[in-house]
Amino acid sequence: AIREALIAFFKPKPLAGRRVLMTAGPTYEPLDPVRGITNISSGKMGYALARALRHAGAEVQLVSGPVALPAPAGVERIGVMTAAEMHLAVMQRVAHADVFIGVAAVADYRPDDAAEHKIKKTGEAPVIRLARNPDILADVASLPAAPFCVGFAAESRDLESYARGKLEAKRLKLVVGNLVQDGMGGDTNRVVLFDAAGDHPLPAASKDEVAAGIVAHLARMLDA
Amino acid sequence: AIREALIAFFKPKPLAGRRVLMTAGPTYEPLDPVRGITNISSGKMGYALARALRHAGAEVQLVSGPVALPAPAGVERIGVMTAAEMHLAVMQRVAHADVFIGVAAVADYRPDDAAEHKIKKTGEAPVIRLARNPDILADVASLPAAPFCVGFAAESRDLESYARGKLEAKRLKLVVGNLVQDGMGGDTNRVVLFDAAGDHPLPAASKDEVAAGIVAHLARMLDA
Repeated sequence: AIREALIAFFKPKPLAGRRVLMTAGPTYEPLDPVRGITNISSGKMGYALARALRHAGAEVQLVSGPVALPAPAGVERIGVMTAAEMHLAVMQRVAHADVFIGVAAVADYRPDDAAEHKIKKTGEAPVIRLARNPDILADVASLPAAPFCVGFAAESRDLESYARGKLEAKRLKLVVGNLVQDGMGGDTNRVVLFDAAGDHPLPAASKDEVAAGIVAHLARMLDA
Repeated sequence: AIREALIAFFKPKPLAGRRVLMTAGPTYEPLDPVRGITNISSGKMGYALARALRHAGAEVQLVSGPVALPAPAGVERIGVMTAAEMHLAVMQRVAHADVFIGVAAVADYRPDDAAEHKIKKTGEAPVIRLARNPDILADVASLPAAPFCVGFAAESRDLESYARGKLEAKRLKLVVGNLVQDGMGGDTNRVVLFDAAGDHPLPAASKDEVAAGIVAHLARMLDA
């Protein structure tokens, strides 16, 4: 911890004075009191980015789904479970943010009707009806005084077209794209940054190094 | 680690020579490459029990779903994701077990047809069709040379009737029952042991202490 504090102290502070609101981790959508739909996000990429943003001098609020990671030093963590809770936690804080970064793997859908008590095995296999969740990033980006918005796209194929589509459809400033196979759950990642100026691939590296690369790119864009 | 090894060394060994096969943690049933159905089991109760069994001298094999816990010292861990993988891992090893303990919160159902690529948001909310998973505990208990079988029942209500029903329907020797509200995800638990002799409530305590109580009861039953 002392070592980390020393490293952080001597790092340049290109984001000093910037207030960053971000999300990380999976969301968990209950089916009943014990079961639910989630995804394989470990939260590692988001937490590495929160740490790198803090090291670069930003004031960071991290709205986090359920993960097995400690909050990074100096970062305010707000814990949530569902996409609806994450949406609310973001909307309550976004007016004060200069930058919003949606790293969380937010469930697009939730069970339409969570059961109050544990669903018992019955003769017939049940069917789960789904309802669409709010799109946190799109809602933030379409605010009248929207912060600088950064999205993440984790795809299993056609990364560039999905990432560019997300950049344009949600009117974001930057999308960080990665192939699921390269990143989710693991300790390393390989990403491509998509912005109006073009595609910027970063080398495959630890999630901490990838986070530092994203922060450097973000700092250049904010200063431009 | 030295402290734990010393404590373990001086504990009585009522299960010396007993081979225990057990399951712990949640299972994860993929919907597509990034999403899936899981449950709120942290694996803590199962891992505490594996540790207590090992301290009591048993040889322990732990078939574990995805959890954020290290394998207990001296315990062989076999990592799995889905209920089908857990079923296979158990069936491959059960012939050598004197005792089988099913602690895992195994998914009763899996998506009928996992998508090969990430499901994209579309106009209409999709419906998830489910297929029944194998019942690991029932399959083990109905083997011709079945080991001594112990089940766990985590319920949100009517604990006694569900636990007694499980004991009888699957012909188990012991069922450890707890209310979901008391245990799942947390560090403490309150359980009731159900066997042919009656109901044996254990005091609310840390999962390590509850595990020691379960092991003591199990050792008495095996010696009887």
